[in-house]
Amino acid sequence: MPRRATYYGLILAGGRGTRFWPRSRRARAKQVLRFLGDRSLIQQTVDRLSPVIPPDHLWVLTNEHLRAEIVRQLPELPKNQILAEPAQRNTAPAIGLAAHILQSIDPNAVMGVFPSDHMISKPARYLRFVRGAFKSAAEGKMVVLGIQPRWPETGYGYIEFAKGASAGSLEPRAVRRFREKPELPRAKRYVKSGNFYWNAGMFFWKTSVLLDALREFLPKTATLLASLPAFANSRFSSKLKGAFPHCENISIDYAVLEKARGVVGFATDDFGWNDVGSWNALYELLPRDGSANVIRGEALAHASSGNYIDAEGKLVALVGVNDLVIVDTPDALLIADRSRAQEVGDVVKLLEKQRRHNLL
Amino acid sequence: MPRRATYYGLILAGGRGTRFWPRSRRARAKQVLRFLGDRSLIQQTVDRLSPVIPPDHLWVLTNEHLRAEIVRQLPELPKNQILAEPAQRNTAPAIGLAAHILQSIDPNAVMGVFPSDHMISKPARYLRFVRGAFKSAAEGKMVVLGIQPRWPETGYGYIEFAKGASAGSLEPRAVRRFREKPELPRAKRYVKSGNFYWNAGMFFWKTSVLLDALREFLPKTATLLASLPAFANSRFSSKLKGAFPHCENISIDYAVLEKARGVVGFATDDFGWNDVGSWNALYELLPRDGSANVIRGEALAHASSGNYIDAEGKLVALVGVNDLVIVDTPDALLIADRSRAQEVGDVVKLLEKQRRHNLL
Repeated sequence: MPRRATYYGLILAGGRGTRFWPRSRRARAKQVLRFLGDRSLIQQTVDRLSPVIPPDHLWVLTNEHLRAEIVRQLPELPKNQILAEPAQRNTAPAIGLAAHILQSIDPNAVMGVFPSDHMISKPARYLRFVRGAFKSAAEGKMVVLGIQPRWPETGYGYIEFAKGASAGSLEPRAVRRFREKPELPRAKRYVKSGNFYWNAGMFFWKTSVLLDALREFLPKTATLLASLPAFANSRFSSKLKGAFPHCENISIDYAVLEKARGVVGFATDDFGWNDVGSWNALYELLPRDGSANVIRGEALAHASSGNYIDAEGKLVALVGVNDLVIVDTPDALLIADRSRAQEVGDVVKLLEKQRRHNLL
Repeated sequence: MPRRATYYGLILAGGRGTRFWPRSRRARAKQVLRFLGDRSLIQQTVDRLSPVIPPDHLWVLTNEHLRAEIVRQLPELPKNQILAEPAQRNTAPAIGLAAHILQSIDPNAVMGVFPSDHMISKPARYLRFVRGAFKSAAEGKMVVLGIQPRWPETGYGYIEFAKGASAGSLEPRAVRRFREKPELPRAKRYVKSGNFYWNAGMFFWKTSVLLDALREFLPKTATLLASLPAFANSRFSSKLKGAFPHCENISIDYAVLEKARGVVGFATDDFGWNDVGSWNALYELLPRDGSANVIRGEALAHASSGNYIDAEGKLVALVGVNDLVIVDTPDALLIADRSRAQEVGDVVKLLEKQRRHNLL
């Protein structure tokens, strides 16, 4: 009788979350910010998973700018399991790297892949699906969690299940296709059909299964990763620095999942998932006062409603303004119309173009 | 032949300019702020008058909070000519006090009264009227400068001249009546009539004439002022502290000008007067960029126009916002709709009610 497989978690924390500028910076990205309560999004991710994955089985992939802060925020994780990618190469090489390392430590490893910057308001409900997904993955399947869509979002990819998926079932279902971000009319059809679910980037598989798939669908990256010495080897880090930048810059969805056969998924029901994609999304999540203002810090709202106000150490006075995002930091102040909060990322792009490194 | 009368100026600088909060504070009122160039409004007042009144003939009445800053900003004035009123008692007692002091120094003194917080963009043109007004005052008249109205403003008092006043004439004309701030329909009639001019608080008279008028129309204040020792007397300051708070709290317009006989005035033409009554008024005065934004400091305006942005030491990023006033200071940030900039004063009133002295 084979021994029960051990579950590992890979938390992907290399993103920047530029739409949360000026709070988010290279060294203070969205996942390390405290939006709700006193735990950052990545801390909440670790907390939430702990009943299923003990922290010493968690790995984090991030970048050089963020690693120190993440190490500080996650003292329960072994430091050497928080890795900085030598280059940003999207999710396929990152997941491949983690699978390679885990496989060398535990040939029976089953890994789950988790974003670091989402919110989940019903963690117990969520964990039922995580446990189910790990179980299916331990049986050799590639598994994905689908989020029941609440509106025809054009910013997410979709998972198309075989017809007849019933939300909330703990039985894995066959995935027919992965669909990239759709235009609005198509997104509407997806939501209406009932068997399209949001792809929130949560994947489960045996490391051996994923590495096989990489060899099949992304051989260059697979070969580069296979050339690395064992993780414990003192030359691992320098070899990684040499090899990783040559990996393909591609997502795991595109590189593997869209091509692999026999992928299954869980058509989950509501566990309060939210990827908090903008200041406006955060506003929608938070409790508001009688004038529909969300106030972090101190504000005096005169004939003003619907505003998100985030300032520390100063009074913010509003006079006759509505539906604004106001975020004050020592070196940058953002004032945006809430309905255009997505465009905050454009400001960051402009600052990058202007090489305003101190503001990034 | 009597010797030529000497001209003195009294600059009234006791106001707070609360509508310029959070830049304006008790100790940094509107008149000491630099809105245009590197000279504050009170410094510009002194500069502008200097061809007619040398600085050592200028006197300033202000309050305890502001005196130190004004002394610092006006080193060309003798320090003891910058006085703090022991209590805020509107313009009649303040002007009476200055007249009393000047009269004791120079029995032939002719004084002009000037606000400290207005802008005048054509000073040479302005000084022609100031000289004319001093000349009439030296002949014993009470003289007022009227500003040709540019719109039916309800926030100013009006001077009604005898019919037939022609704007820009250097001949003084009889004043028929002083009119208090009108409602809009009346203001419209005033502007249409052609012989109503704005009262900008610029008055000229021999100190002896003003003191006579005070004795006639405001005997209590006149008696209190007459009880003071000479200005040079060491007990002057303490006696003033005792007497001044008992003076009537009343404007010179209401106490004297509305009642006095034979007041004359100048119906001036445009010398670029502006009392800069709000952030919006300031916005209207300043040069704007291609998106009609006024930027003091550094800002990045993305799909945003018509904003007044005033922040030091940080980048302000705007996304899709229009016609706002944004003023950032270390302890307070104001964001107001430009069309409601007048209501900034209400915020200050609220802060006073809440006893937030550190923000006032």
